[in-house]
Amino acid sequence: MIDMNDLQRIKCTISYDGTSFNGYQVQPDKRTVQQELEHALSRIHKGQAIKVVASGRTDTGVHARGQVIHFDTPLSIPVHKWTLALNANLPDDIVVNETEYVSNYFHARFGTKKKEYRYFVNLSKKRDVFNRNYMYHFPRSLNMSDIEEAAKDFIGTHDFTSFCSARSEVEDKVRTIYKIECIQEDDVLIFRFVGNGFLYNMVRILVGTLLQVGEGKISPSQMLELLNERNREHTGVTAPGNGLYLWEVSYNN
Amino acid sequence: MIDMNDLQRIKCTISYDGTSFNGYQVQPDKRTVQQELEHALSRIHKGQAIKVVASGRTDTGVHARGQVIHFDTPLSIPVHKWTLALNANLPDDIVVNETEYVSNYFHARFGTKKKEYRYFVNLSKKRDVFNRNYMYHFPRSLNMSDIEEAAKDFIGTHDFTSFCSARSEVEDKVRTIYKIECIQEDDVLIFRFVGNGFLYNMVRILVGTLLQVGEGKISPSQMLELLNERNREHTGVTAPGNGLYLWEVSYNN
Repeated sequence: MIDMNDLQRIKCTISYDGTSFNGYQVQPDKRTVQQELEHALSRIHKGQAIKVVASGRTDTGVHARGQVIHFDTPLSIPVHKWTLALNANLPDDIVVNETEYVSNYFHARFGTKKKEYRYFVNLSKKRDVFNRNYMYHFPRSLNMSDIEEAAKDFIGTHDFTSFCSARSEVEDKVRTIYKIECIQEDDVLIFRFVGNGFLYNMVRILVGTLLQVGEGKISPSQMLELLNERNREHTGVTAPGNGLYLWEVSYNN
Repeated sequence: MIDMNDLQRIKCTISYDGTSFNGYQVQPDKRTVQQELEHALSRIHKGQAIKVVASGRTDTGVHARGQVIHFDTPLSIPVHKWTLALNANLPDDIVVNETEYVSNYFHARFGTKKKEYRYFVNLSKKRDVFNRNYMYHFPRSLNMSDIEEAAKDFIGTHDFTSFCSARSEVEDKVRTIYKIECIQEDDVLIFRFVGNGFLYNMVRILVGTLLQVGEGKISPSQMLELLNERNREHTGVTAPGNGLYLWEVSYNN
């Protein structure tokens, strides 16, 4: 029997290579990040089931540089040994970067203040075998100033229904985007999105739409109209998961 | 029946991510680069077996940025369509970068003039989940000037028996190294080796030895002695395959 008063809450910042996972969340008979985390924790706790809470899910093929999770443990282990114990029990496509004891009021999902996603596009004409799982290969010429003009219209507080998967079950589709940056370094285009939260597939639909703007298929002047329509049908394609990284999650202290 | 006079020789420059291959060379019941190449060619030739010759083998986990192969074909296909046809039939961890028709005197293995290998070391204290298959993680402090001093002694023509796997069946172990460069960019250390040819595991044993020099476990003044001993037993460990890239192969024209 575990006395709940003896449980201590632990926050971890983790990275994973999403290539070989069916996303973050546990699904029957599929390899997921959550399943591997809970499996490792169960081993550390001698078979006891430990539930992990993450800042949010990520889809199949989507990567994380700074996903945040929490769990509660009856064990008293010095904090740096927690990192070692977890990494020793995790497969090599998940790495725990940092572990800390936090108050029981900390919540990885409900306490988030700000999230940053980055999306990497390889614009080179040639396929790069070493980046095939880590960037979206999109060998086209893009009008970068059109992309930047269009991106500006997404900044601020909007109802993002048009940029959310129709499969989403979330009711409130209003989110605030604080910042969008488009950085081109040689053949690599990086999109940075910072916001208070993102809907299901939202970053991937925003990227898909911005790339179509860059190709001249959608005019940058249409963005507010697309937002106002609150209709997924007229926005761009969903860019593939392999270019997307959950980069950083910030919390209220 | 194929008239040998009607065969045309094709040279391809290819890249592959060695992570999921049991090396280059065909082995029964194992996934290899050669097997995938010959499988793709057989499909293009409607089931006919086509033999591929490479500049040399690479081991399990070893990558190639610029491996060169040749094969002979009865088909007359424009050269840029060859690249497309091959890539359409290859798995996504092999990419054909360039294809050209060459004279029947060209030979991918026997005609090599110069080869370049590069070896990537991640010196960061932290594991990088995205580079785990593409760099050797070696989180130690290194004395770079000792490494550079030691590396100089390998340049030139030497019997490299001490730096060759004991399993090698090659008789002549004399090779010429034209250039060794050690480049450090932040936490990444890159070794460049250019030579007329390299023995089995030679680059990996040279890197393993140079890293031990950098750690102070072997003195840089011992290199000529190690070479002269012609004995594998006193040289450093074999660095892992995941950091090694066959970078470029040059031919006599």
